[in-house]
This record gives sequence, C-alpha cells and structure tokens, in this order.
Amino acid sequence: MLNEASMCEKLAVACRILAMEGLVDEILGHVSVRVPDTDEMLIRCRGPYECGVAYTQSDAIQRVTFEGGGAKHGYHVPKELPIHSEIYKARPDVTCVVHAHPPEALICGIAELEFRPIFGSFNIPAMRLALEGIPVFGHSYLVTRPDLAKPFIDAMGDKDVCVMRGHGITVTGRSVEDAVVRALNFNTLAKVTLQVAQTGREARAISEEDIAELPDLGQTFNEEWVWRYYERKLKQLERN
Amino acid sequence: MLNEASMCEKLAVACRILAMEGLVDEILGHVSVRVPDTDEMLIRCRGPYECGVAYTQSDAIQRVTFEGGGAKHGYHVPKELPIHSEIYKARPDVTCVVHAHPPEALICGIAELEFRPIFGSFNIPAMRLALEGIPVFGHSYLVTRPDLAKPFIDAMGDKDVCVMRGHGITVTGRSVEDAVVRALNFNTLAKVTLQVAQTGREARAISEEDIAELPDLGQTFNEEWVWRYYERKLKQLERN
Amino acid sequence: MLNEASMCEKLAVACRILAMEGLVDEILGHVSVRVPDTDEMLIRCRGPYECGVAYTQSDAIQRVTFEGGGAKHGYHVPKELPIHSEIYKARPDVTCVVHAHPPEALICGIAELEFRPIFGSFNIPAMRLALEGIPVFGHSYLVTRPDLAKPFIDAMGDKDVCVMRGHGITVTGRSVEDAVVRALNFNTLAKVTLQVAQTGREARAISEEDIAELPDLGQTFNEEWVWRYYERKLKQLERN
Amino acid sequence: MLNEASMCEKLAVACRILAMEGLVDEILGHVSVRVPDTDEMLIRCRGPYECGVAYTQSDAIQRVTFEGGGAKHGYHVPKELPIHSEIYKARPDVTCVVHAHPPEALICGIAELEFRPIFGSFNIPAMRLALEGIPVFGHSYLVTRPDLAKPFIDAMGDKDVCVMRGHGITVTGRSVEDAVVRALNFNTLAKVTLQVAQTGREARAISEEDIAELPDLGQTFNEEWVWRYYERKLKQLERN
Repeated sequence: MLNEASMCEKLAVACRILAMEGLVDEILGHVSVRVPDTDEMLIRCRGPYECGVAYTQSDAIQRVTFEGGGAKHGYHVPKELPIHSEIYKARPDVTCVVHAHPPEALICGIAELEFRPIFGSFNIPAMRLALEGIPVFGHSYLVTRPDLAKPFIDAMGDKDVCVMRGHGITVTGRSVEDAVVRALNFNTLAKVTLQVAQTGREARAISEEDIAELPDLGQTFNEEWVWRYYERKLKQLERN
Repeated sequence: MLNEASMCEKLAVACRILAMEGLVDEILGHVSVRVPDTDEMLIRCRGPYECGVAYTQSDAIQRVTFEGGGAKHGYHVPKELPIHSEIYKARPDVTCVVHAHPPEALICGIAELEFRPIFGSFNIPAMRLALEGIPVFGHSYLVTRPDLAKPFIDAMGDKDVCVMRGHGITVTGRSVEDAVVRALNFNTLAKVTLQVAQTGREARAISEEDIAELPDLGQTFNEEWVWRYYERKLKQLERN
Repeated sequence: MLNEASMCEKLAVACRILAMEGLVDEILGHVSVRVPDTDEMLIRCRGPYECGVAYTQSDAIQRVTFEGGGAKHGYHVPKELPIHSEIYKARPDVTCVVHAHPPEALICGIAELEFRPIFGSFNIPAMRLALEGIPVFGHSYLVTRPDLAKPFIDAMGDKDVCVMRGHGITVTGRSVEDAVVRALNFNTLAKVTLQVAQTGREARAISEEDIAELPDLGQTFNEEWVWRYYERKLKQLERN
Repeated sequence: MLNEASMCEKLAVACRILAMEGLVDEILGHVSVRVPDTDEMLIRCRGPYECGVAYTQSDAIQRVTFEGGGAKHGYHVPKELPIHSEIYKARPDVTCVVHAHPPEALICGIAELEFRPIFGSFNIPAMRLALEGIPVFGHSYLVTRPDLAKPFIDAMGDKDVCVMRGHGITVTGRSVEDAVVRALNFNTLAKVTLQVAQTGREARAISEEDIAELPDLGQTFNEEWVWRYYERKLKQLERN
C-alpha cells in the first residue's frame, strides 16, 4: 500500500474521475479506503472550503475511525459513513468503497429495469457484473446509522455492486482502482440498459455459448490501463 | 444583506450559473431580488450591449420599482416584470425570484407528466419539492400585465416552484442562493421524471417509511456548499 | 446592406454559428445572401482548403450568378445551388437562404411527427412558425437541377421554413440574421417535438386564448440581441 | 502509399478521431492497415505507457505479421488480431480495418433494430450502406482465434460494415480515410435509427424514385474533405 499522503492523493483523483464521468455531482458522493489492520479508513470529507466532489483535493481526505472520530477540525465525515464502516466490518476482503449517484443507474432503478448480460465483448467486465447479478436495495433512505445499514449490507451480500433504488450505487473493490473501474463499468451497463429500454424493445441475453467463449477477465479487466486513461483524461480536463 | 453592488454581482453570477446549467438560453430568463423595506427590486435587464443571459455582467442588474420605473437609460426591464413584482407584493416571505426556461421541465409540462417523489436520498430537497406538490399553471402567455399575473400567482399559491406549461418555471426563495439551488434541484427532478417516462414505465413513489427516515433538509440542503460548487464550475468554464 | 467583404464575413460567421449549434456537420450545408438588384448571390463554396462548415472563413464565400458561374478558381459551388437560386427567382422578398441538416428535424421528418404549437412563451417565434405551418417536402433527393427544385419550391410556398424529409431543412429570411435565428428557433421546436414524442404522449396545442395574448416580438429581438448572443458564444468557443 | 512512419502517424490520428467521435472509448478498439505485398500489417497495439485510444501516438502502431509476431518489446497486439488478419487473408481488396465499439450501433444491435435507407440526401453514403445491407454477426464472443473469426468473416461477406451484436462494429476500406469515414457515416445511420426507434414509430424507407435521383457517391463521398474536417476538429480539441 502507498503511504498515507499518496493514498489521499489517489482518493482525491478517484473523486474527480467519478465527477468527470458523471457518477457524482455537486457535493454528493464519497470514496473511502480501509487503513490496513485497523478499524480506520481514509474517506472524502467536507471541509471548510467544500466546493464539490469535482474539485476534491487531498486535504479533504481524512483518516477516521469506523465510528467517524478523528477528522481534523472543520472537516465533516459523510452522513452516510455507515455505508463504508459497516461494509468494512462485514467484509474483510473489501479495501475500497465508492458511493455515487449516477443518473442512469438511478433511472434504471426507478423504472425497475433489470440488469442483464445483454452484451459480451463490448465490455466483458460489465457483462460479468450482470451475469453474477446486481442486487437492488429497495429503500431510498439515507444510511445514517448502523441499523439502517444492516438491511443494505444484507441485500448487497458478497457482491461488489449494489443499486440502491431511488438513491444511488455502492461499489466495493480490492483497491481504489478496482472499485472505481468497476463503478465505471457498471455505469456503462446502466446506460446501455436504459437506452435499450427507451426503444421499447426487450433485449435478449447473450447465449451460454458466447459466455463460455468470453475469457474471465474479472470485473475490472486491465484496470491499470483503464485507470491511466481516466487519469490522463482528467489531466486534460483540468489543464483547461 | 450585501450592499447593492455586491448583490448586483451575485445576481449576475446567478444568471450565468443558470445559463451554464441549461435552465436559461439565449436572451430569455431573469432573476431578481427584493430591495428590503421598499417597493423596489434589483432585476436583470437588457442593456445596450445585451448578448445573452450566459454573459450577464452586473451592469445589467438594475434597481427598479415594482412598476418597472427607474432603470438607467438604455436598459429595458423584462416584459414579464409582473411575474416578479406581483410575487413580491403577494408574498412578503419571498426575497428572490427566478424565471427560467429549462427544456426538460418544459417537456414534462407539455407531456403532462406528474412530478412525484420517485427518489429519496438521490436528491432529498428535490424529493421534498415533489412531496409538497408542484403546481402547474396551464397558460403559456407572456405575463406582461398584473391581470395576467393574477391567475399565475393564484396557481402558484405559497409554493416555491411553479411550472408554467408551454413556457417555463418560476422559483422563489429566501435568498438568491436559496432560489437558484431550488431551481437546480427541481431541474434534476424534471430530468429524471422525463427519462423515466421515456422508458414507457410507471414509476412508483418511494414509501412512506423511507420518507419518514429522510431528514427534512429543506428544499435547498447545504445551499452554501452547493452554491460554491457552481461558482467554482462557472469560474472554470469562464477561464476557458 | 454591408459592403461585400463585410457580408462575406457575416456569412462565414453564420456558417460557424450553425455548426456550433449542431445544425450542420462535417462539410454539408450552405448559406447564401442575394446581391441586391442582380441575378447573383454570395454563397458558401468549397475551396482548395475545405475543412468543414465549422471552420468557414470568408474566402469560402464566393459571388456567383444564379447559374453558378463566377466562383474563383478552385472554389466549387454547392451541388444544391438550385435550392438558393430558384428561391431567389421565385421570391423577391427573400434575401438569405440557409440549407442545413439538423438531426432532430431530420428524425421528426422520418418519424412523421407533426410540428404543432405545443408551447407559447417558451419560444414565441418558434410557436409562430408552428402556427403558420411547416411544409414538409416528401423527397430526399439532392436538389441539383432546377427541375428538381421546382416541386420543392412549390411545397415550400411562401413559408420561411421547409422540412425536406430524409434530407434537412431550408430556411429563408429578410437578412442573414433573420434566416439564421429562424433556423435556430425551428431547431428548438424540433428538439422539443422529438423529446415529447419519445415519452409516447400526445401533446396538446396551446389554446387560442393564449395565442391571442402572445405578442409579436418583432425583428430587433431576434436579429440584434439573439444574433449577438451567438456571436459571443462563437467567440468564446473559438478562443479555446 | 506513404512511408511507414507517416502511415503510423495517420493510424494514430485515425484512432484519436474515432475516440473524439465516441466510436471507441477507454482502451478498446483498434485500427490496422495492410503492408502492401506482404503478410504483415501496421496495427494499434498497447505499449508500456498505454493510456487509452484517445491518446494514441504513433509509437503504439506496430508492424506485425498476420500471426501477430514482430511487435517491439513491451507492445501487445490486440487479442482480436484475427479480426484483422483473417479479413486481410480473405479479401485482397481490403487495405484498412477498423474495429470499434460505438454505443448507438451496439444498442441498435441489442434491440434488433434494422438498418434501412430511411434518409437520402442527409447523408448519401450512409444511405448507400443501408441500401446494400448491413450484415449482423450474432455472436458477442471475443474473436481471439482464426476459428472464431471464420463465422464472422462469413457473415460479413464482401460488405464493408458488419455489426457484431453485443460487441461492436468492424469496418473495412481501401484506405485509412475510406474506412474511418465509412465508420463515421455508419455511426450517423445508427444514431438516427436509434432515435427514430425511441419515438416508437416505424420509419418508411425512402422511395425507389428518390434513390434513383441520388448520385452514387460511394460510401465515403468527399472523404478527403471529410477527413480534413476531422483532423482540424481533433487539432482544436487537442490544443485545449
């Protein structure tokens, strides 16, 4: 793992990438990473100069306990901290948690569209997500307490993406890159699912035979390269 | 309240933010703020160098009476000044009025889509707007006279957002930030409502239970932070 | 009328505004203006350095006869010159002709959506266009000869906008600004019409009563202020 | 043919144009050109600094055999090299192969929308593509071996565009410009087809009579000018 300062920088970049790609807007959404072998995490907070997720700098990433203690004076942990801490408590395999509000996934959730493996090689990791099944958590309340997180954690199970109907998505990963790239892949699935639905047509899932021929690249194939692409795109955007 | 020059600057920024976000276009739309303890307002006018709401500078903000008198030579008050003055007369609680033409709200109005609380935590203030009900004014004429404003004021009642079918929206607030952020929140509701409708599916409203768990953040939660985000985004846009 | 060099500059700006707003793309589409008291026009041609309508400079504007003669060596008049010349011959009131390929109008034409006065104050000039009726020319061939122009001219009649199904639109005006702003207004009508249709709902036309209350905003409104807005927007785009 | 260095530069530009126009995203998609009179091609590979198709530089273009040998150390040929090599083997007329993942064509494929000549002069080369028929390959597996390429080659036949359902498109040409402009023209057809379908209406094909009047400009009319437009647009984008 990187040292803490580098990890804070990486989380800030993750926030800005998610904003650039439309998965978060205004001041809503947060990313965290577990501090190994502790009950603490680094998480995007709102500080005295808060001006939106798209402009997150590393000072906004604070090290806090699972209960939310320890942020520097003037920094507020997200109201929905329990999304992060309850996942870290329940799932030792999870290193990073992304909570975002992508409009297309929201609209799919509201319209109760199913996420199915309707494409293959177009985006194999997204297809794998659909194949494994995307749990949908039916409540749209703010997850501000552990008791409110509990049914959400149950609904998500051991999956890495959960749609929270009328709310947003939560995505987990083995690293920041892993979770962010998975969130982006799922967003692609949601966009395609929505547009197909808007034609009024039913889409067939791809065949078993095709699935058998698709290499199991995991859900975040080539994440290093993909991450580098978004870093580069962000740099170009921010140079303007 | 700020001094008048600062308030003019803030109104100009408000106009540019609304243009940046697509709520106004070309030369249509205006924002005003009541001058406390008077029958006057500061309002966006068209001056000799008029070149669109997106390029509003503070010189375009003129102090005028509720009847429209007092603008500097060469500055024209909006033809629809009565939208502003009649609201200020009827509702002492209102400090700021935004009149805008966002396409999605227009399309929802034309297609007679209902604005309902179809999401929760995705955008709680927008959900509250839907929950309280969005009055729709059925006429699309220009509100150029007090007698034409009357039925509009009646339709709007004590609400802070009114859709004017075939025309646009009028939004009120306790401050410029309050009204602008509410207009932006409503725009989010309209965009989601439209996209859900384009899937051909009926959306369920969220449950009473979820609503009970949603904190009442008002309709413009965190308006200071949200406003700062848009100021920052505007700065980036204008630096180009 | 401006001198010829200034008029060429204005036509080049018109081309770039139409490209910026998505009404023309790649190398297709052209604008012309009648040379008063002659059988000649200034028209956008393709020169040796042709690189798309979005990058039109005034050298591409050539003075040619209604038969297409007189362009400088290396400059090609549009294959569809007869759209321009036959309109100028048939309609002495027309000073400017815009031929463009806006996707939304195309899609409305293909889907046989009707253009109706479904909004009022949102965009009064666009509503007036719908109220007067938008003729649709049913053929999608290239108008390369006067005999092919004839039925198109007949279909257009004395109207200022004609949709050419499967092809594009032709818009006329009393000046360059008049024709370009009308094309933009019509484009707004087409976009709204398309989006309403994509909800699957029928839209009601606005009432006679509302129409009676809608003022005729006159020429300054569009030609001076709206044009200046697009000039300013273009300048900002091109500064990048 | 250009010398090899210039051809590599042109292929890199082709990749960036396809990314700019949304036909490829992230790190997926590739373009190749046959090396005349050999069993080799120049093809976009992933190198040690891979950061997305939008940022392709000429170093990423490697000269490799039809079996994939010969790339410089650290450069990986596409897993789907057989798409390119099997086409070059089967079709001596083909000089360039584009493999891309445009979302609209994908969505049309998933929704099983037909590509028909629903417009004429709007984009004549795209209309010709529809008229000649767009084969759809029904499998969405990765084409990683010659035996997997075989049924795809059979489905594509002697056509220059093939939709690979749930995957993307493959487009061939007599030159890089020819293939890229054809891919862009097909993308226009896909976008219009999708939007028409989203109105829920059936579109009529244009008439035989209109088709007869449409000059046969081929499928990539004015490719030199169109290519120059995209080069210019790319330059403007990259200057930012």
